Amino acid sequence: MFHHSSKLQYPVKVDKPNPEFAMLLQQAIGGVEGEIRVAMQYFFQAMGARGDDRIRDMLISTATEELSHIEMLGHAVALNLEGAPVSYQEASAKDPVVRAILGGTNPRHLLSSGLAALPENANGVPFDMSHIYATGNVGADMLANVTAEAGGRVLASRLYNWTDDHGMKDFLAFLIARDTAHQQQWLAVIEEMGGLEAQLPIPNATPEAHEATEHSYYYLNTLLDKEAPKGRWSEGPSFDGRGEFSVRNQPAPEGQEPKLGPAKPHSGAQEEQINPPQ
Amino acid sequence: MFHHSSKLQYPVKVDKPNPEFAMLLQQAIGGVEGEIRVAMQYFFQAMGARGDDRIRDMLISTATEELSHIEMLGHAVALNLEGAPVSYQEASAKDPVVRAILGGTNPRHLLSSGLAALPENANGVPFDMSHIYATGNVGADMLANVTAEAGGRVLASRLYNWTDDHGMKDFLAFLIARDTAHQQQWLAVIEEMGGLEAQLPIPNATPEAHEATEHSYYYLNTLLDKEAPKGRWSEGPSFDGRGEFSVRNQPAPEGQEPKLGPAKPHSGAQEEQINPPQ
Amino acid sequence: MFHHSSKLQYPVKVDKPNPEFAMLLQQAIGGVEGEIRVAMQYFFQAMGARGDDRIRDMLISTATEELSHIEMLGHAVALNLEGAPVSYQEASAKDPVVRAILGGTNPRHLLSSGLAALPENANGVPFDMSHIYATGNVGADMLANVTAEAGGRVLASRLYNWTDDHGMKDFLAFLIARDTAHQQQWLAVIEEMGGLEAQLPIPNATPEAHEATEHSYYYLNTLLDKEAPKGRWSEGPSFDGRGEFSVRNQPAPEGQEPKLGPAKPHSGAQEEQINPPQ
Amino acid sequence: MFHHSSKLQYPVKVDKPNPEFAMLLQQAIGGVEGEIRVAMQYFFQAMGARGDDRIRDMLISTATEELSHIEMLGHAVALNLEGAPVSYQEASAKDPVVRAILGGTNPRHLLSSGLAALPENANGVPFDMSHIYATGNVGADMLANVTAEAGGRVLASRLYNWTDDHGMKDFLAFLIARDTAHQQQWLAVIEEMGGLEAQLPIPNATPEAHEATEHSYYYLNTLLDKEAPKGRWSEGPSFDGRGEFSVRNQPAPEGQEPKLGPAKPHSGAQEEQINPPQ
Amino acid sequence: MFHHSSKLQYPVKVDKPNPEFAMLLQQAIGGVEGEIRVAMQYFFQAMGARGDDRIRDMLISTATEELSHIEMLGHAVALNLEGAPVSYQEASAKDPVVRAILGGTNPRHLLSSGLAALPENANGVPFDMSHIYATGNVGADMLANVTAEAGGRVLASRLYNWTDDHGMKDFLAFLIARDTAHQQQWLAVIEEMGGLEAQLPIPNATPEAHEATEHSYYYLNTLLDKEAPKGRWSEGPSFDGRGEFSVRNQPAPEGQEPKLGPAKPHSGAQEEQINPPQ
Amino acid sequence: MFHHSSKLQYPVKVDKPNPEFAMLLQQAIGGVEGEIRVAMQYFFQAMGARGDDRIRDMLISTATEELSHIEMLGHAVALNLEGAPVSYQEASAKDPVVRAILGGTNPRHLLSSGLAALPENANGVPFDMSHIYATGNVGADMLANVTAEAGGRVLASRLYNWTDDHGMKDFLAFLIARDTAHQQQWLAVIEEMGGLEAQLPIPNATPEAHEATEHSYYYLNTLLDKEAPKGRWSEGPSFDGRGEFSVRNQPAPEGQEPKLGPAKPHSGAQEEQINPPQ
Repeated sequence: MFHHSSKLQYPVKVDKPNPEFAMLLQQAIGGVEGEIRVAMQYFFQAMGARGDDRIRDMLISTATEELSHIEMLGHAVALNLEGAPVSYQEASAKDPVVRAILGGTNPRHLLSSGLAALPENANGVPFDMSHIYATGNVGADMLANVTAEAGGRVLASRLYNWTDDHGMKDFLAFLIARDTAHQQQWLAVIEEMGGLEAQLPIPNATPEAHEATEHSYYYLNTLLDKEAPKGRWSEGPSFDGRGEFSVRNQPAPEGQEPKLGPAKPHSGAQEEQINPPQ
Repeated sequence: MFHHSSKLQYPVKVDKPNPEFAMLLQQAIGGVEGEIRVAMQYFFQAMGARGDDRIRDMLISTATEELSHIEMLGHAVALNLEGAPVSYQEASAKDPVVRAILGGTNPRHLLSSGLAALPENANGVPFDMSHIYATGNVGADMLANVTAEAGGRVLASRLYNWTDDHGMKDFLAFLIARDTAHQQQWLAVIEEMGGLEAQLPIPNATPEAHEATEHSYYYLNTLLDKEAPKGRWSEGPSFDGRGEFSVRNQPAPEGQEPKLGPAKPHSGAQEEQINPPQ
Repeated sequence: MFHHSSKLQYPVKVDKPNPEFAMLLQQAIGGVEGEIRVAMQYFFQAMGARGDDRIRDMLISTATEELSHIEMLGHAVALNLEGAPVSYQEASAKDPVVRAILGGTNPRHLLSSGLAALPENANGVPFDMSHIYATGNVGADMLANVTAEAGGRVLASRLYNWTDDHGMKDFLAFLIARDTAHQQQWLAVIEEMGGLEAQLPIPNATPEAHEATEHSYYYLNTLLDKEAPKGRWSEGPSFDGRGEFSVRNQPAPEGQEPKLGPAKPHSGAQEEQINPPQ
Repeated sequence: MFHHSSKLQYPVKVDKPNPEFAMLLQQAIGGVEGEIRVAMQYFFQAMGARGDDRIRDMLISTATEELSHIEMLGHAVALNLEGAPVSYQEASAKDPVVRAILGGTNPRHLLSSGLAALPENANGVPFDMSHIYATGNVGADMLANVTAEAGGRVLASRLYNWTDDHGMKDFLAFLIARDTAHQQQWLAVIEEMGGLEAQLPIPNATPEAHEATEHSYYYLNTLLDKEAPKGRWSEGPSFDGRGEFSVRNQPAPEGQEPKLGPAKPHSGAQEEQINPPQ
Repeated sequence: MFHHSSKLQYPVKVDKPNPEFAMLLQQAIGGVEGEIRVAMQYFFQAMGARGDDRIRDMLISTATEELSHIEMLGHAVALNLEGAPVSYQEASAKDPVVRAILGGTNPRHLLSSGLAALPENANGVPFDMSHIYATGNVGADMLANVTAEAGGRVLASRLYNWTDDHGMKDFLAFLIARDTAHQQQWLAVIEEMGGLEAQLPIPNATPEAHEATEHSYYYLNTLLDKEAPKGRWSEGPSFDGRGEFSVRNQPAPEGQEPKLGPAKPHSGAQEEQINPPQ
Repeated sequence: MFHHSSKLQYPVKVDKPNPEFAMLLQQAIGGVEGEIRVAMQYFFQAMGARGDDRIRDMLISTATEELSHIEMLGHAVALNLEGAPVSYQEASAKDPVVRAILGGTNPRHLLSSGLAALPENANGVPFDMSHIYATGNVGADMLANVTAEAGGRVLASRLYNWTDDHGMKDFLAFLIARDTAHQQQWLAVIEEMGGLEAQLPIPNATPEAHEATEHSYYYLNTLLDKEAPKGRWSEGPSFDGRGEFSVRNQPAPEGQEPKLGPAKPHSGAQEEQINPPQ
């Protein structure tokens, strides 16, 4: 069950409202790198968690923290929109030379939300929940979580680099730190489960008999005009201790040419497909 | 530039066509765990690749292989649909007692594709390209790739477990093997770049001055009725060598109560919001 | 800031797991009538709330309750999937005559989530955040909230009517009650603001000079072969006290025939559109 | 059956074409507050209408009017795009200093429609039909309709406030008036059915035995650091005449801690989830 | 401006309601081959029509007819759902042996619409308006319209082939006929404009100087292991009278190897990308 | 099976990077007129191809070419973004007067891809695979392909018209030429199958007995205030040689008034719908 405090997790200040930055911040709310995504991802992973109870607790606990991040970002967007123009006249008066009237801002902050945050990304594309990765496999899910936090920290850094507002920089420095913490945390779960090697290949419960292992450890170089690059992937033992890396250059097909029968009568095809000319 | 051979990468056989399994296989084509996703993800990462050229070559080369996987799966779907009924009468005749006429199959294999594969998942939801993760940060991208291959191998294993068709099992064993290979391959790239520690936190080019590092290494336990679980995440050195793990239980808010000004006149709000009662 | 208790808001029991009912319950999680929608709708309305602070508090408080409803429903879905078959063989053995193998269930509970809830509706369509209605106008938002709770209670009643599982009926009776409470609550906010009449027309801050009021109170009957139905809408005073209802039957157009100029050169049109024949 | 007149419902004039305003007007066509939405919503409600035939007639009649609104808006968009630049050179010549070349306009008015309207919102996001709310419950549907018209009038007012074009203001004043009329009209239907109280709670056909009525009339305050706000919702009789409002502050969970069994063998989970360490 | 008659364009009868067929019919309403698509496509093309006024009239007139087709299909869906079970108990009683309870039906006909049509396809995926093709180029649009009517007639034929209900067959025979008529009609517009050759290549207003015409008439055979197939495309004059068909087998790349500079500092990349090892 | 060369199909040069043009080029990658669409459309048609094997070969071969077009466009986008500003300060310094900071560019080129291409259109809307038209009917598919190439050439011409960059003009002239070639090629397939007349109406295998042919050849003029326009569609023989064109003006409905029974008990409707007042 969830509860709420009326104060924010961390102070959110904006020195000088900037509708352009409000548009950019939307990516951290409703982008695939954003906070709705991690909040809901950890939440759904928690609801399907099977196995070690500690992981379920961590998932629901961190989902809860991410909800607090959405809340701070939503406030940051609204603060950046305080006083934004609501008429062409007002906009022109404010800034007669330097800039286009609406260029670089999200027109739906004006039209749809009344100068407040939307559950959408920086292009105004609404977040869609197919981005919640929760597979029921704890190894795959932990990797998905590290990935999500990496993407989140890349985004927060880009926002930090863009803005020159001290309030916003302070707030983003906090988010950058928490993304660091969460990257570390999900990696620590993998470590606690015996390390990445013990988890590989994911799923580690797939019996070897279900795998054509002669195809499991070569790098396939499909480039016709270049040899495979050399590196850790081209020779030496595999990370799961089961094989040896190698390389296949310019591979030939091993399968058949695909061929289907003629179309069935009454299947909506053209006559020529049902009775092809011989 | 791309080229094509008319034969498949690996043989695809179906012993006994099964429209239900055709529906399930769609997830491996157009699901977020599927092959369109990895093909396009590696392709877009390649087109934005900056830095070590070997990684760009691997990305475009493996993208090319994944296109061949789509091709095999598309053929597998069509083979499973060969001879499927196209009328109620035909369907009833075939199977008068055991099963619903359309239950468990995708009606759009009948209506929309004429008994062939669709670029959609097992529910008939079309694949949408927002799932192509290509951040311009090679560390984040490699993690996204390992994650994608983990999800792909989970799915391929579930399909293998479900079917009792020998042809399909043989084909899925090949896909399972290649997913193993690709998990290993992207991890090997990270290894080649100095290992995960050298890459952390992602992005590793973010200066420490941009981070409120006092918030970077504690696990925040937002549960009101439980202490934080103990494990690798709760004490000991962090994986990036910059900090020491710790725990914060039942944290209090550090920020302000969010509060916005009244609504602007002519902003589309109610009168009460523009001139709130005192 | 959000917090969490490890227990559910209300007990969730399933007497006999039923994967079909798991599929139906998804609508209450990820359907437009579902709990993700109201949780996020109240959350975003709260973040943009301007005016009476009590309303903001109610919005964030009820958003928090709705998160707890998602949590219960997610558990209900997983409990209904406990022990569901993961292979064709197992499915056939369990139920050789009565039913199709996969008919009536969501195949992605098997393939994508490992027998757990998805953030999607009963067709497997992911929830998309464009359904979060938060206009910045408190009148429009309160109506949207009553509407959402009405839709939610319709859905919960349909689920109650469908199932014969006592545990599920008990849980749904709780959700039905809370939907009643929330319908009442948002109507009470409107009442507290002076009642619906005081709020109408929404937005009530639009000056009458911005409105062609001669078009504000007639019912336009576009049916060519029927007179307008009679009722409260066809005569008597309007609800905002500004007009008198009337009816216009078989209206004639008042505007011009729309006509555009020829296409511009170099605008990608056909030659005939740029230089139309005279 | 539908018919058409070649003239518009109301005159549409543009004094000075403005591609920025063309972009904004798109929200009234393809936004969730727009005219495609109400046209299709009333249409689908009409096709599923059961009960009083007058309501079906009103739904299909007003759907028909809304189609005429789309037609006028489409013309308004095209008129605002007349003469817009189709080359960088032309754009620079027109406006060498004041503004960015494409800033604040929709590039797809240039690239995709050849200077005409798109069925999309102001961000270029296509309208998606999941926003058609038609539940089969006339009470829920009427509320949804009032809500839609409230959102529509908020949007039309914002557009009116933004523009300084007299032709556009005249046209928007007409739309504002019709949105007023439709708000009134759907409320009048509720009134005709006995008023909101008679309709509550929706659905009013749900037997009280299906409801845990001890949970139907309290406001749940999940805020840990604030008492529930006082107002019409916190005491006094409920609007359906069945209960008495009250408040629950800082509620404790009443349910169990959610706990799932271990993962099934062959379900695609990690080994640790199938055989968790004791 | 639009108008409406209260009767349907053509009689719609269902001899024996069938919820499975209701699900299939949804494709003709909300599928990409369906009637919402053509209604809206012709409508938006009309609103952007420049050039010959007769074409604009035909577009809006046929858009109006397609709206009447939606109306008939919506009624057909509802009639097929009359009396469908609303509880598990009722469903089991009706059909204890032959079929799964929900298999082959759309659960949201029960949960979301109360036994009526939805603006969605046969998988329950809502129609999305990006499928409205209206380019502002009348040649491209006419081809898109013929294509849409071809797809529509394929679908209507598949539905006709599936059902054994006489009422439905009679209704579908009407739709098949109208799809024939509309295929013919849009081809006749092309004929009236001088025939396909005069329209080619589309857009025909593109000056030849904008085209690398040495690449305009060869078939590029990218297959490594097969010669180009011979046919009308491999030799003889092109259809626009400007060139001669030919073939290029196993083409070599003509361009450079793509190569980007290192990542910019402060662009969110990894350190290795900003300062790549030499 | 697919293969790759490390060089591009055709040289791609950018004389002067322009982030605005990078945004516009996105339409040719991820728009419905773009290259992902044709690549995947031909690919899926190939996988479902039944009938003449030459067509399957052409489909997979041209799909392969289109993948090479995506590759060139992705490189063109990245080249146009080389050196784009990553901070507000840098952006202001570069261009203090002329333009808005972010106006006219895609903010997610900065935030999400690190100055590289996205699989999205010019508004940042991700490509969705429902636009892959592959019906299993070769006639419908060939028309869809000509349509797609017509839309593609319209777009390429608009991009050519917009830009003043010589490198980009040279590259676009190549794309314009290949779109010409592909329009010709798919028309040649229709010619090879006996010409359009032999293919009409599509599907040509639908028996005439399935069609109410008395409705197959009239143009229905639903306009109340105008006679049907005269032209090739209003008289003369139909293109399939089966009928004679004619016209029906101001048609009257031939069907019944739609009417549904009352709502079922326990179907979630209002009481008034279940027991309507007499």
